[in-house]
Amino acid sequence: MDEFKKLIREVPDFPKPGILFYDITTLLKDREGYCRLLDLMTLHARATGADLVLGIEARGFIFGPALAYNINAGFVPVRKPGKLPGRTHSVTYDLEYGTDALEIHEGAVPEGARVIIADDLLATGGTAEAAAALVEKVGGVVAGFSFVVELTFLNGRERLAGHDVFSLIQYDT
Amino acid sequence: MDEFKKLIREVPDFPKPGILFYDITTLLKDREGYCRLLDLMTLHARATGADLVLGIEARGFIFGPALAYNINAGFVPVRKPGKLPGRTHSVTYDLEYGTDALEIHEGAVPEGARVIIADDLLATGGTAEAAAALVEKVGGVVAGFSFVVELTFLNGRERLAGHDVFSLIQYDT
Repeated sequence: MDEFKKLIREVPDFPKPGILFYDITTLLKDREGYCRLLDLMTLHARATGADLVLGIEARGFIFGPALAYNINAGFVPVRKPGKLPGRTHSVTYDLEYGTDALEIHEGAVPEGARVIIADDLLATGGTAEAAAALVEKVGGVVAGFSFVVELTFLNGRERLAGHDVFSLIQYDT
Repeated sequence: MDEFKKLIREVPDFPKPGILFYDITTLLKDREGYCRLLDLMTLHARATGADLVLGIEARGFIFGPALAYNINAGFVPVRKPGKLPGRTHSVTYDLEYGTDALEIHEGAVPEGARVIIADDLLATGGTAEAAAALVEKVGGVVAGFSFVVELTFLNGRERLAGHDVFSLIQYDT
């Protein structure tokens, strides 16, 4: 997907030294590139037959709701601890150093509902795997994952094995 | 807009005692309600003739990008300090106690571009006013504001006087 890579800015040493950050904001502000990106993500999402799209705070909120609208599904936010106002289920997952947690509202997903998990980036897959655990904890079925960018050298896809994993743009290094 | 109010959950004492929080996540997960909400916000957004939609982290990310897609515009995120990877412009604004800040990427808005500012909630209008200041600082024109919920008793609309301010659902108390 070179048409998209041309619109993505590479920012060295962000968020910390030694990390090359693929900045998609330069793609999002380009109306043609942005609308085409969503068209392609929508084709995949529609084929999963999902009832709901789940987005992970904060950058997953950029893509999940638009995908949901395009396939006539509802949207469910997964947020960092303490942000959702109602009663929640929570999952803790490992980071490189330490742990983090995500929350979903009780009752957010009807029993058996098919859910797509959307986020901007598939890196190690830890966040996506945690979101999938939340979906299953509340009785939903993971219908697939949808990412804008995949860093294939981090092998995140292996952690999501057995699921339908879509990414629009891949980087090998 | 009683059809929407029926789908919004009222959570007392969130995020702190004495505050009644209007929780729109129960509306977002309802596919019919959510899609109709976006249809109506889109009608307003299209009429502004905007080139870009700006969304304010984090809940503004839920609506801005979908609106942008629907009117064939680009999307620009405004984030809390330190989250955007490139060089930024920043604005500081007053909260009830203390101050907060928002950032936008340098070059995110072309000179003279028409920008809609989208967020979930119009309360006192301080955040929206700060976002408008950022748009003007980088050379853009504020084409309008689009909110899901407006708390009319907080008079936020007065701070945005002179602009086209749209809200879908109003609460008087």
